[in-house]
Amino acid sequence: MSESADPGAAAARDAYKIDSVALRVDLLNAQFDLRDAGFSALIFLAGDDRDGCEQLDDLLNEWMDTRYLDTRVPERPGRGRPAFEAAWRGLPARGRIGLYLGSWAHRTISRRVLDRIDDDAFEAELRRVRELESTLAADGALILKFWVHLPDEAVRTRLKKTRRGTSTGWRRTKIERRVLERPGVLADVGAKARGLTDTAEAPWIVIDGSDRRARNLAVGRAILAALRNRLQAQTRTAETSPEPEAIPIPAGPGVLAGVDLTRSIGYDAYRDRLGRWQRRLGRLSDRARRRDVASIVLFEGWDTAGKGGAIRRITAAMAAANYRVVPIAAPTQHELQFPYLWRFWRHLPPPGRMTIFDRSWYGRVLVERVEGFTPERRWRRAYGEINEFESQLVDAGIPILKFWLHIDPDEQLRRLEARVRTPYKKYKVTEEDYRNRGRWGDYVTAAEEMIARTSTPAAPWHVVAANDKRGARVEVLEQVCDRLKRAIQDAR
Amino acid sequence: MSESADPGAAAARDAYKIDSVALRVDLLNAQFDLRDAGFSALIFLAGDDRDGCEQLDDLLNEWMDTRYLDTRVPERPGRGRPAFEAAWRGLPARGRIGLYLGSWAHRTISRRVLDRIDDDAFEAELRRVRELESTLAADGALILKFWVHLPDEAVRTRLKKTRRGTSTGWRRTKIERRVLERPGVLADVGAKARGLTDTAEAPWIVIDGSDRRARNLAVGRAILAALRNRLQAQTRTAETSPEPEAIPIPAGPGVLAGVDLTRSIGYDAYRDRLGRWQRRLGRLSDRARRRDVASIVLFEGWDTAGKGGAIRRITAAMAAANYRVVPIAAPTQHELQFPYLWRFWRHLPPPGRMTIFDRSWYGRVLVERVEGFTPERRWRRAYGEINEFESQLVDAGIPILKFWLHIDPDEQLRRLEARVRTPYKKYKVTEEDYRNRGRWGDYVTAAEEMIARTSTPAAPWHVVAANDKRGARVEVLEQVCDRLKRAIQDAR
Repeated sequence: MSESADPGAAAARDAYKIDSVALRVDLLNAQFDLRDAGFSALIFLAGDDRDGCEQLDDLLNEWMDTRYLDTRVPERPGRGRPAFEAAWRGLPARGRIGLYLGSWAHRTISRRVLDRIDDDAFEAELRRVRELESTLAADGALILKFWVHLPDEAVRTRLKKTRRGTSTGWRRTKIERRVLERPGVLADVGAKARGLTDTAEAPWIVIDGSDRRARNLAVGRAILAALRNRLQAQTRTAETSPEPEAIPIPAGPGVLAGVDLTRSIGYDAYRDRLGRWQRRLGRLSDRARRRDVASIVLFEGWDTAGKGGAIRRITAAMAAANYRVVPIAAPTQHELQFPYLWRFWRHLPPPGRMTIFDRSWYGRVLVERVEGFTPERRWRRAYGEINEFESQLVDAGIPILKFWLHIDPDEQLRRLEARVRTPYKKYKVTEEDYRNRGRWGDYVTAAEEMIARTSTPAAPWHVVAANDKRGARVEVLEQVCDRLKRAIQDAR
Repeated sequence: MSESADPGAAAARDAYKIDSVALRVDLLNAQFDLRDAGFSALIFLAGDDRDGCEQLDDLLNEWMDTRYLDTRVPERPGRGRPAFEAAWRGLPARGRIGLYLGSWAHRTISRRVLDRIDDDAFEAELRRVRELESTLAADGALILKFWVHLPDEAVRTRLKKTRRGTSTGWRRTKIERRVLERPGVLADVGAKARGLTDTAEAPWIVIDGSDRRARNLAVGRAILAALRNRLQAQTRTAETSPEPEAIPIPAGPGVLAGVDLTRSIGYDAYRDRLGRWQRRLGRLSDRARRRDVASIVLFEGWDTAGKGGAIRRITAAMAAANYRVVPIAAPTQHELQFPYLWRFWRHLPPPGRMTIFDRSWYGRVLVERVEGFTPERRWRRAYGEINEFESQLVDAGIPILKFWLHIDPDEQLRRLEARVRTPYKKYKVTEEDYRNRGRWGDYVTAAEEMIARTSTPAAPWHVVAANDKRGARVEVLEQVCDRLKRAIQDAR
């Protein structure tokens, strides 16, 4: 009321009204153009001025069209779950805006402010954030991170006035108390976090929160400018951005050439060993279930290499409630609306369970590479993205077993011909299988590079000689038991 | 080994091989035809012979094409979650088969066998199963429920031999012990459960589990016959099945005609009451969060009735982490692959949080009815399905607030014209809005019938006079606070 008595203030208010109306119209138009533009936008509202962030969140929900806007609050991961599982599963689809109250660095910042983690952990966690943002940016996402800043004194003055239990949220109190005890701590930690996660593709934009109207316009205009730039630049850059240089892998004969495909075991030894490992796996699987140890087993390899048979020997050993088999085919239209790894994040095993992938995320660097479904730039990036993905899972206590079932071309031909003669297997054989045989060499190259680039200490590849199906099945079971046992021990 | 010495047994084995090969081919072909048939199939493997069920599960995974097969194990619901949330969320899409190890009656049967529930609860829970199956069948799903049966003596003999910790699963022991204590209890309870959930659209098929091969063939043939029947019948019945008779609703002037649209409150009273209720909602929302009380608020009503404004007055009162707004538009192609309510089940609030729906599942009996997007048969069924859906949520302790914001046609015209004059609201006005005005009477009929049929004691409609926006917002806030408070009290 006092404001309207002051002619200067009234003029400022009127100017804000005019500016914000124009901005709203422009934002709505940009949002509509985004719908068909094939990329998503992620907007983060973080900072020491958390009231300001909540106000901006409300404001952007009012200014923009909420039908194409997903509001998210980054959450702490559940026990034994990877840090960014919820982030991945909640990503906005292409054409949509994800509006985040907070940032993916938020929990790390809070824990550092509260001294729950040291500088090393702080940096390691923020490296994960950088990797995630870089993966999404490479997929085309537009990422804008706002840091709404108030002078330390203003934060403290406001906090002193804030009473617990008001609409500003009960979760803030621990941080609030720490900020009142230690002036400047949030600004310091925040600045360090920004430094570690400020990249060209996901920059931090610091906004002065002192003046509400100026703040609103600054954020709105920054979003508008970024959306417009990207919408205009999109077609221009798609063709011109250079393919990355391939980093050479060690020369010489690959690991596949060295596989001894002549070994085989007799039927009686097979029955014996199979039964023994299956009983063992059954017990381990129940133990994993009781101790909430989730696990992942994935199979890649040549057509007819025996993936299905090996999987059935695993599943037959376990109670059906303890596992799930996920066959991976080409992505659906719906799945194509998200970054490549999104659909695999959605299939992670729940606590205590095993997910078995019949083919996997490695399709990106195998069939998609060889058949040219994916530009080289993208499948080259996939090695690093996959390593990061798997390392997050392993760090969360979820072991990953990766099997390449290896056979030679002659054995494959024998099996294809046997399939054609078997009525219920005929459907598995398509012309593609024979065409793929013509690309055997290309697939060997792709598989060798995949094994070289993604065999990490945490999640190594197991290349299994599979000309002898029996031997392959027993070896797979043995490896699964061994790894699961270690994971259960580590979980104590 | 002894088998092969017996010529009769060898002949039986050979006959089985021949029969099963033919069956596998037929099943694969039927499965391929299903892919484009626009309906899903749900196959349940339940019974007193649980080993047999697991064997059948493995077998069907081997016989059929797992790319179009989703294996599921019905799970117990989490604390405070509706009984069939997981069932809904995990439904197979059209064209796919859901293969369930166990049945949706399974947990109820177990609890009755263990005397954890009485006959009344047993019947009430099975009624829910029947409703769910009937909803899915009405959506076109083919449902087959196998009960694999062994004579009681055989079950007990096998159980005595079974040691804990083998591959058959650690979860069976409590039921096992009870079955050993009380001969026949599982067969009795199972028979009762089948009686209560045996319907024409989701029949139980009892299979004798004594002979493994005969059992396998019987199950496979029953699936094949059902798939083939449905695939052939599909086009025939779609047009001829009769529209259900409408059950008359009470005549006389509807509830909407009785709304007093002339009331209004002054600005000062509004600011006052708004602030008071918002502070209260903020506190209640934090309390709900701490006590894991989830809640749902949904808005329906005329275009321009002020849904967005009312929602913002709710959200402004709460910490952003405590709620989520879900605007409902026409279903996507992906969502159309599932029964109507599927997408709403996916948006249920997590424990402690509020989900606010800007439009809702009632679109089925409003816009889809009036615009003729959905055949009468389907939207008529929706009343009952929605009541069942909401009753499950309320029973799980999740309150539902349903608001119809009511204005008159003159007020709407004023608002549409004002919107056209406001640059950032112009986008909200389309030709459709004006066209819809021509159908005002049809929408009144649909809304009146909706309110009459879906105002249940557990989840009544609140019709809010909204010509006066201020009064409407305050009333909404008051109702939300009131209901949330009761839900928090009930949760103790």
